[in-house]
Amino acid sequence: MIQFQCDYNEGCHPEILKRLAETNMEQTVGYGCDEYCKAAAEAIKKACNAPQADVHFLVGGTQTNATVISSILRPHQGAICASTGHINVHETGAIEHSGHKCLALPAVNGCINAKQIDEALALHFNDPEPEHTIQPGVVYISYPTEYGTLYSKKELQEISETCHKYNVPLFIDGARLGYGLMSEASDITLSEIAQLADVFYIGGTKQGALFGEAVVITNENLKRDFRYLIKTNGAMLAKGRLLGIQFLTLFTHNLYFDIAREADKQAQRIRKAFLDKGYKLHVDSPTNQQFIVLPDNDMERLGKDFLFSKWEKVDDKHTAVRFCTSWATKPENVDKLIAAI
Amino acid sequence: MIQFQCDYNEGCHPEILKRLAETNMEQTVGYGCDEYCKAAAEAIKKACNAPQADVHFLVGGTQTNATVISSILRPHQGAICASTGHINVHETGAIEHSGHKCLALPAVNGCINAKQIDEALALHFNDPEPEHTIQPGVVYISYPTEYGTLYSKKELQEISETCHKYNVPLFIDGARLGYGLMSEASDITLSEIAQLADVFYIGGTKQGALFGEAVVITNENLKRDFRYLIKTNGAMLAKGRLLGIQFLTLFTHNLYFDIAREADKQAQRIRKAFLDKGYKLHVDSPTNQQFIVLPDNDMERLGKDFLFSKWEKVDDKHTAVRFCTSWATKPENVDKLIAAI
Amino acid sequence: MIQFQCDYNEGCHPEILKRLAETNMEQTVGYGCDEYCKAAAEAIKKACNAPQADVHFLVGGTQTNATVISSILRPHQGAICASTGHINVHETGAIEHSGHKCLALPAVNGCINAKQIDEALALHFNDPEPEHTIQPGVVYISYPTEYGTLYSKKELQEISETCHKYNVPLFIDGARLGYGLMSEASDITLSEIAQLADVFYIGGTKQGALFGEAVVITNENLKRDFRYLIKTNGAMLAKGRLLGIQFLTLFTHNLYFDIAREADKQAQRIRKAFLDKGYKLHVDSPTNQQFIVLPDNDMERLGKDFLFSKWEKVDDKHTAVRFCTSWATKPENVDKLIAAI
Amino acid sequence: MIQFQCDYNEGCHPEILKRLAETNMEQTVGYGCDEYCKAAAEAIKKACNAPQADVHFLVGGTQTNATVISSILRPHQGAICASTGHINVHETGAIEHSGHKCLALPAVNGCINAKQIDEALALHFNDPEPEHTIQPGVVYISYPTEYGTLYSKKELQEISETCHKYNVPLFIDGARLGYGLMSEASDITLSEIAQLADVFYIGGTKQGALFGEAVVITNENLKRDFRYLIKTNGAMLAKGRLLGIQFLTLFTHNLYFDIAREADKQAQRIRKAFLDKGYKLHVDSPTNQQFIVLPDNDMERLGKDFLFSKWEKVDDKHTAVRFCTSWATKPENVDKLIAAI
Repeated sequence: MIQFQCDYNEGCHPEILKRLAETNMEQTVGYGCDEYCKAAAEAIKKACNAPQADVHFLVGGTQTNATVISSILRPHQGAICASTGHINVHETGAIEHSGHKCLALPAVNGCINAKQIDEALALHFNDPEPEHTIQPGVVYISYPTEYGTLYSKKELQEISETCHKYNVPLFIDGARLGYGLMSEASDITLSEIAQLADVFYIGGTKQGALFGEAVVITNENLKRDFRYLIKTNGAMLAKGRLLGIQFLTLFTHNLYFDIAREADKQAQRIRKAFLDKGYKLHVDSPTNQQFIVLPDNDMERLGKDFLFSKWEKVDDKHTAVRFCTSWATKPENVDKLIAAI
Repeated sequence: MIQFQCDYNEGCHPEILKRLAETNMEQTVGYGCDEYCKAAAEAIKKACNAPQADVHFLVGGTQTNATVISSILRPHQGAICASTGHINVHETGAIEHSGHKCLALPAVNGCINAKQIDEALALHFNDPEPEHTIQPGVVYISYPTEYGTLYSKKELQEISETCHKYNVPLFIDGARLGYGLMSEASDITLSEIAQLADVFYIGGTKQGALFGEAVVITNENLKRDFRYLIKTNGAMLAKGRLLGIQFLTLFTHNLYFDIAREADKQAQRIRKAFLDKGYKLHVDSPTNQQFIVLPDNDMERLGKDFLFSKWEKVDDKHTAVRFCTSWATKPENVDKLIAAI
Repeated sequence: MIQFQCDYNEGCHPEILKRLAETNMEQTVGYGCDEYCKAAAEAIKKACNAPQADVHFLVGGTQTNATVISSILRPHQGAICASTGHINVHETGAIEHSGHKCLALPAVNGCINAKQIDEALALHFNDPEPEHTIQPGVVYISYPTEYGTLYSKKELQEISETCHKYNVPLFIDGARLGYGLMSEASDITLSEIAQLADVFYIGGTKQGALFGEAVVITNENLKRDFRYLIKTNGAMLAKGRLLGIQFLTLFTHNLYFDIAREADKQAQRIRKAFLDKGYKLHVDSPTNQQFIVLPDNDMERLGKDFLFSKWEKVDDKHTAVRFCTSWATKPENVDKLIAAI
Repeated sequence: MIQFQCDYNEGCHPEILKRLAETNMEQTVGYGCDEYCKAAAEAIKKACNAPQADVHFLVGGTQTNATVISSILRPHQGAICASTGHINVHETGAIEHSGHKCLALPAVNGCINAKQIDEALALHFNDPEPEHTIQPGVVYISYPTEYGTLYSKKELQEISETCHKYNVPLFIDGARLGYGLMSEASDITLSEIAQLADVFYIGGTKQGALFGEAVVITNENLKRDFRYLIKTNGAMLAKGRLLGIQFLTLFTHNLYFDIAREADKQAQRIRKAFLDKGYKLHVDSPTNQQFIVLPDNDMERLGKDFLFSKWEKVDDKHTAVRFCTSWATKPENVDKLIAAI
């Protein structure tokens, strides 16, 4: 059974494993205060062209979202997000557990736009008696989105401007950031992401690491006491150096980006193969996740040799399914899938 | 600089690293539903002689404490603990962040006793109008304690009986459980721990793993929906198999216990060396943490070659310090420390 | 300026004021343990034909919703509600502040139906891996709804059956319960409400009291420790007898229902007056809230002598507005409004 | 049975009842935006000599404490308080329910001092790795304390200076503020309280009102969005004018202070009577609460005609009990108590 159901089927990139082995018996201080974490933070700041940023390492995505969002908000505030945003639909209420509502806006292919955000913010902040409803305190978007789609640079600029017009910070969930930036459809750089967002994270779990997400805080106002927040949220890894070593490896010799580009390439081969055979896309994604509408008998047939995710029923006889590639996807497995299609 | 400041200075036991490398490119499903997690859970249930238990794997200790405790309590309930308990003093309010008070009882060398617990529970439950104060909803103790000390089997039995007399579950934090069970001073087995506690965890982070804590739930009432709680608390590792592989390795060929026994042995050598030279113990610990009272000039002298933790000032000229051993402690480094003492 | 903008413009019904004055210098114990609270609880249980119910008195609606819902749910659970439900849109995140998500379903005129609820519950509970999404733990509806509309007895029976099929309790927000039950369009009794709901509340604030909501818990499983929850939520009134005296007065000689019937009657006069003049209803409500679509110049004209609420823009030239009557509405003021229409 | 067990046995001061009756059928807008609330806020600002302050009205003490404290703190912060502080022992975890720990310091007769606070703040803020423990984010004291005792002006100045040295705001719980300020032992004025505290509240519930606490915020940084916080905490009274009318009455013609002074006077008569008969004070209080050590047979004897609170067992044969006076205490009832002593 060849697995395409998600982008975390395997362990980690061999280069990371090698570095973990080489450093295994070194002694370091804990909790992310070691030299590897410092070096990794420096490498990330350099890659972001953001020398003043703060960089912190957490273990997983849900934890990162809850930690960042609850570090920003006061009790009466909520997070504007896409209706399909990860925090809104796939984190078992982690944001609400930290006390805050997800203020969902209707998404199109995973995206929301500046106009929607502006209207939502204006509706609240122009209300003469706004205290009876939740105050939007942060805008959360994902790049790429949960549907593999991308915002254009212009769209992100407009969103960022809208947020700042209302003095509301912009938080970008980059769980798959590399797959987004390396897509041929992307017109934005990591450095530009760092400029437009007030805080964002660079996902490791789905892009070569065993685990780990690197939070980059560029807005000075959001930096204060962030290490406390990590701890309060149970997100501070005792052997923090594991995160440092992994991210340092990913941000050495461009590894993070190279493996993402290759994954995107394999995903586009899958996309093309389905299109060539006349299948419809559920969502047209230029990144490592492909959403295809399959007749149910085809789904059953392909399901004998390949693992993929059922996404949602499209109609009585069709289902949207997801195929993911990753840094670990072997081209020969994609060949087999294409042959089976 | 030789480091004794904590028990998570190094990576992981070489056997674990080997297994992580061997399995690295295998494809598995995520979130702890893979075969390694299942096998590790089976191995742990067998070691606990608790075939009906539920076993779950989380990443770190603070996260585990917050997840377990908030899974048990309703909003008006709190957790009875030692004043020196980890949840009370060293988790940056993670328990309170989840909505619950730590109801601290005065500790002696890290321990509380059944009589204290009984009095606290009686004081509350015999109050004709108890609703104005927090209802104790769980009792939390650590084995070994944060001071390396141990409860005797009899003490644990009494605590367990007291809890159950009031229908309050007992939760044992076993971040260093192996170091406790393998101590020559211990008179209790893992299986007995599993019988006396309603829920406890077996620490991996400080005992050979890169990270990871295995929660064992023996009380049927506490099992419901625990996987949801893990997710809500941001504690569900995407590549859950990493936890399964590590714990499966630790619970194969008795590795978990063997490495703990050796660490305890090295710690006792350090203890003896200090006692032989006439130093006083701050706390007399039979496990891998040693608390010594050092004159400040000795502290400075030893501090040139060795890293250890300052615990607290004892008086103007003396400081209590902590030396930890672990599965990774090299006997030759202990030799060097003893020579320096 | 004659005020129709809400149903809490005045103080309390004169009979209540009289009783507060008569009892003012009596000495009673605090926190709702006095004889007036006991007598009021008995009167309510009798009116509900629910001798086994528990009755508690709280001060306000948002506080009551947050207290009841957080008393029911565990951290990974949320509350199914209408998208227009009060908890979802008008409580500044009180439910989320207590840690829980409002799982909003699309509402039609303020109502959701059993089919929608069944689908939402089935979607979750039939998911083989449900732990990645919030578990619905309670269903919240309002009777009457925030739009003044009513569920039929059959609809409520279906909703109740659906909830219980999945073992999820049904909570009915009765902030305006009397206005609902006394409507000519209502086909259900208080006693039937008590049978169908697991917990509900009888609103006092909007129906004759200075303040106060009476929570009626009929489901045995939801009764435990509720007084603690009231206190934890800051909702326990020191001079609890004020609530007892008010509800005892309201539930003596049918006062609660008589004043609600009269308010409904006045509201229907307003409704008829607008319809007679050819205005459109925004929502057709048989209770004390009337939602009318007004051309903007009519809105301005009426606004000179009457206070009413702007609800939402309907189009460029029309606005939906709300007129409320209450126990305190003077028929002669309704005459004036009708004359002005 | 004559009741001395608390200071909220009766309804409200007759003058307040009169004003509530006179205004009962007036129509006002809701939620504290009416003219009575505005006038009451002005009267309070004038009495505080704090024209720039913000004044908000809430219903009860626990709710006020939770709202104020959670409006100030971020998730990793806690509230320094006396071990006997109301928030620490008598609010069923309301502060923890809002996510924050009470950082209790050992109290002497209900008081903590500047030195203790300084040590606690220094311990945290001088720690090179403070993020593993809760950051103190506010200091909470009560004036008078829960034991009826008072801080001197000098003590309050020192506490205030200490707080501000560390940039931590000072919050004074004034549930019984009038009884404190009007005590012959008090050397401070309301205006000085307003200068030393960053936020405090003036208690109404225990001092003549049916209910109500007036929060006064003098620190500009703490003012932002406070009305939202009131709502999120379920503390916004629909008929807000009830609070405005009550506080306006209390702050007209010095009523608030006159009734407090008289209550203190009656309490001192009780104190003297016990002392004259050779009884010991449990705590020596100059305000309206008196804590007396009674032999158990005296307790039983007095308990036949008078209601008072059992505070705590002093030894096998003695119990500390509390007698409270209030604005409503009749001198002839005190005469009877004195005769019985």
